[in-house]
Amino acid sequence: MDLPRFVIEASEAESMAKELGLSVLQLLPSLVKSAQKLARPPISKYHVGAVGLGADGRIFFGVNLEFPGLPLHHSVHAEQFLLTNLAVHGGPLLRHFAVSAAPCGHCRQFIQELRNASEIQILITSSENDLEESQNFKPLSSFLPNPFGPFDLLDKETPLLLEPHDNGLSLVSKTIDSNCGNLCNGVCQSYTKNESELKMAALEAANSSHAPYSGCPSGVALMDAEGRIYTGSYMESAAYNPSLGPVQAAIVAYVASGGGGGYDRIVAGVLVEKEDVVVRQEDTARLLLNKVSPKCQFRVFHCSLASNGCKRPASNCE
Amino acid sequence: MDLPRFVIEASEAESMAKELGLSVLQLLPSLVKSAQKLARPPISKYHVGAVGLGADGRIFFGVNLEFPGLPLHHSVHAEQFLLTNLAVHGGPLLRHFAVSAAPCGHCRQFIQELRNASEIQILITSSENDLEESQNFKPLSSFLPNPFGPFDLLDKETPLLLEPHDNGLSLVSKTIDSNCGNLCNGVCQSYTKNESELKMAALEAANSSHAPYSGCPSGVALMDAEGRIYTGSYMESAAYNPSLGPVQAAIVAYVASGGGGGYDRIVAGVLVEKEDVVVRQEDTARLLLNKVSPKCQFRVFHCSLASNGCKRPASNCE
Repeated sequence: MDLPRFVIEASEAESMAKELGLSVLQLLPSLVKSAQKLARPPISKYHVGAVGLGADGRIFFGVNLEFPGLPLHHSVHAEQFLLTNLAVHGGPLLRHFAVSAAPCGHCRQFIQELRNASEIQILITSSENDLEESQNFKPLSSFLPNPFGPFDLLDKETPLLLEPHDNGLSLVSKTIDSNCGNLCNGVCQSYTKNESELKMAALEAANSSHAPYSGCPSGVALMDAEGRIYTGSYMESAAYNPSLGPVQAAIVAYVASGGGGGYDRIVAGVLVEKEDVVVRQEDTARLLLNKVSPKCQFRVFHCSLASNGCKRPASNCE
Repeated sequence: MDLPRFVIEASEAESMAKELGLSVLQLLPSLVKSAQKLARPPISKYHVGAVGLGADGRIFFGVNLEFPGLPLHHSVHAEQFLLTNLAVHGGPLLRHFAVSAAPCGHCRQFIQELRNASEIQILITSSENDLEESQNFKPLSSFLPNPFGPFDLLDKETPLLLEPHDNGLSLVSKTIDSNCGNLCNGVCQSYTKNESELKMAALEAANSSHAPYSGCPSGVALMDAEGRIYTGSYMESAAYNPSLGPVQAAIVAYVASGGGGGYDRIVAGVLVEKEDVVVRQEDTARLLLNKVSPKCQFRVFHCSLASNGCKRPASNCE
């Protein structure tokens, strides 16, 4: 079985490098073309691949994703995929990555959300005319000098992207079934075991969400036809617009799992977010999911801070 | 009457500068605080102002706009507002602007869409600790070195942002009334003169839209309670995500007109775009308009290339 792979274990990365007479760092650019082949850009046909080395020695892939029939801001860039892939796999520190094209400003800004941002070393493999560029890593600070970033808005103690988050959220029992639009206030429908799992997975993703600017964390869990669950946490950028939506993050998890299947294999999705807040994902999440997998069942559950918001135990709804 | 102003005529700019013993260029940073006061950032409360000098001697303001209840990618940054404000007023070349905070990567990328991008001179007024920074203009190329930009994807002849566009679009007669969801195939309802004007204004905006990457231009026209019309053209970025939606562009025109009113004074909106294309604004446009002005009537008309798509004269629908 030769499924596409988005993570290479540390030991295997070392063997691969050894076999080629390279260091693991030198291996990164040599893998960029393999990453590019895994991209899903049906609009631009422009395949971008990014290959990063985690502090734990694992190698992570990132590719660009585009979603026809919607505005372009739904797109996921290879560098965003790479960081999300790291998050899905425990969030090791990223110090180096190689990428097939010069990172755009949107991505440079998104990467700026990491605490060690300015030191992250980037190598652009397409710089064929510039031998120095194509062989040397350069820090993000040289691609985004004088940045606007998290520390323009947050104190130094606030957790940043890929750092542990616990947003302290619990589910509230009032639930929206977004297929029928009905509110089932307490009188909840019977959910299957799978659906309940999906809800708890989305809550966990919301609890890991990086949303320090709006205070509106959210998480999505998707289920495929085999009942496998993929989660994604909403990730904010200090610059707002480059923020990555929770459905996008969960789709990254789905693609990165390596199944390689089409999005229509996603049969159910749950979004967990706070109710009536300034940043609300529901309508946009539904729009995207409906576009990529029209038959996907989509439900929204609201959460609030456990200390003051959980009027009824979440189990009442299960 | 002291309406907020987003454009200062060349002669007035010269008098203002003379009075202060400054050059017009030196006047730009001195106006940034006035611009910041016009920002509408209900989520971040972070007021950004940008003040640019057009090649025709006029001064243009840009401010940030945020829209509660939606994902953050709907936000308009001050630099995007500035470029859109230039577009609304004939699109003179921009060579210098001053801005209250370091432009984020998303904005640096959006500005990269101009032909003279790398030479655009930027001064950041908040660099209080760095006297040199706060007094000197520096080129975009020093804020976004080694950029990804239009010429990575387009030939040199393709018109770029703020250059004249004529997308050669005409309306097709099949029309969606998005309030009722009915299709009125040819058997169109009687539109008032105002509505017909709105439709033609949106078509004109679509014809000026900068969408060379997707080939999916679009335009929006909004009408306020007094029947005044504001148009916005969809503007794409080579990096996809920083693209500015047509509703956002029209809202910029509404705000820049200086009326200073709330968005709920927008009573009607029309979107013109191609049907069933890879970049489709309709659902997202409806979402945003419905959020900022819930009573706003919203209609969508489809267009196609005049040479092969206009099966029936648009006047049939009026």
